[in-house]
Amino acid sequence: MNSLKFLTFSEIISSLKNFWNLQNCTILQPLDIIIGAGTFHHQTFFTALNSKKKKIAYVQPTRRPSDGRYTQNPNRLQHYYQFQVLLKPAPKNIQQIFIQSLQHLNIDIKKNDIRFLEDNWENTTLGACGVGWEIWINGMEIAQFTYFQQMGGLNSVPISTEITYGLERLALHIQQCKNISEIIWTQNKNKITTYGQLFNNFEQQHSLYNFSESNSKILYKLYKIYLKESKRLNQHKKILIIPAYEHMLHAIHYFNLLDCKKTFSVTERTHYIKKIRTQIKEIALNYLKNFNNN
Amino acid sequence: MNSLKFLTFSEIISSLKNFWNLQNCTILQPLDIIIGAGTFHHQTFFTALNSKKKKIAYVQPTRRPSDGRYTQNPNRLQHYYQFQVLLKPAPKNIQQIFIQSLQHLNIDIKKNDIRFLEDNWENTTLGACGVGWEIWINGMEIAQFTYFQQMGGLNSVPISTEITYGLERLALHIQQCKNISEIIWTQNKNKITTYGQLFNNFEQQHSLYNFSESNSKILYKLYKIYLKESKRLNQHKKILIIPAYEHMLHAIHYFNLLDCKKTFSVTERTHYIKKIRTQIKEIALNYLKNFNNN
Repeated sequence: MNSLKFLTFSEIISSLKNFWNLQNCTILQPLDIIIGAGTFHHQTFFTALNSKKKKIAYVQPTRRPSDGRYTQNPNRLQHYYQFQVLLKPAPKNIQQIFIQSLQHLNIDIKKNDIRFLEDNWENTTLGACGVGWEIWINGMEIAQFTYFQQMGGLNSVPISTEITYGLERLALHIQQCKNISEIIWTQNKNKITTYGQLFNNFEQQHSLYNFSESNSKILYKLYKIYLKESKRLNQHKKILIIPAYEHMLHAIHYFNLLDCKKTFSVTERTHYIKKIRTQIKEIALNYLKNFNNN
Repeated sequence: MNSLKFLTFSEIISSLKNFWNLQNCTILQPLDIIIGAGTFHHQTFFTALNSKKKKIAYVQPTRRPSDGRYTQNPNRLQHYYQFQVLLKPAPKNIQQIFIQSLQHLNIDIKKNDIRFLEDNWENTTLGACGVGWEIWINGMEIAQFTYFQQMGGLNSVPISTEITYGLERLALHIQQCKNISEIIWTQNKNKITTYGQLFNNFEQQHSLYNFSESNSKILYKLYKIYLKESKRLNQHKKILIIPAYEHMLHAIHYFNLLDCKKTFSVTERTHYIKKIRTQIKEIALNYLKNFNNN
């Protein structure tokens, strides 16, 4: 409860959790590994691969080094939060449920221009793709949903639906605010904490590290170690699929940091993505071989 | 809302968030880096160091490799969840507020034997220590609180109070259940999801990796890279304190993985801890130099 006329950032999160809990989703906690999208959380990756019914939702801190702007851009950050929902099988009335989730956040769907723009989404490193929509409110993208046709480069049966809300974008709309750093994270008594108070130093220092002060040789060494370890663990005679997958998440983060420094030529970049996707596919195959009938 | 006679794991989390929000805490999200205690979250580390008033609370996934038991021990895991509260300055009636938080979880404080056992807590790698209490319900430890007298090896002024709830222990008590894997994480309609369904594979595979299948040479190489990078970033003429701190969190995780394999002699172990603590102290000093008057 706050004395403002709108939900705070924390309240947006708890409202979405309540809404999706009422839709029978199991609310999970974020993964404690740096990832570039909520999709990489192993609960989404492995769930989308297997054939069991499941509904989950969670917040995920997300880091995309190239998106950092030293806090100088009002709506772009290298670290932000996604609210991720995975529904398997995909419900038929998903657009309607999504609209209800906006109403649950007190968004008046008659007074705002809400559009579904077709967008065939692909995550090249994760080997995930599918048809889907971007959801725009008054000209700003606030969410995306995708029918996963492939995950780990393998066809998904049954097909899952993933909904990803960009929480900062949603808050910009709800709070009618122009700059992420001004988003009200929380209000206690009369004390307001803004997004910028919590994250401006973090964003500035990481932008500086990501774009100029990281050491490419070390990033490359880390990338190679994690990729090699992932292969060893995935090929192990004992089942070490989750550690193998987590090593790939680290490898992908170091690839993203290298990419952020424009280290690769176009050909090299394609080569690296292919290597990553191949290893992710090996993990997906190993998982299906060992767990799909459990 | 569920049809059970007790709170699910997810509801325990949301109740604690509600309670501490009403106590004027800013509810934060978990850190996306593997850490061995909620105390390592940079929002606790840097907040405890500076002189500003602050109240925060968050859930943190926590990994302590040596505590893994391949799911064979009913109340020991290598990955679990802490609910962390940091209050600065420390309120005088903290024990009373803590008791109220238990009542908020529908724990009858008259029917249960709740004890505060003095326990002078120390985190050797983080250079954090202070006087405090373990809180036991009916013979099981469920929480700890500590007055931080030192953080990063430096005296804290003013002193903060940290409260850490062991969420699984709390759930064992609330759900009157004997085995963590049987804890009810969530109930949707009549479908129950247990802790074990979500984490048993994860625990088994990580226990196997942590105790026997990790590669000590690689762990050591990673430890060294992260420690060295942390030093470089902390000594940089530009401010890169948060990236330097995050590199140390990675280094500490690899130290914990090495320690789990009993790689060190007693003398070596002390030597490594000292190296880590020294670098954490350097970061703390650098932070105070640059940020304490902001």
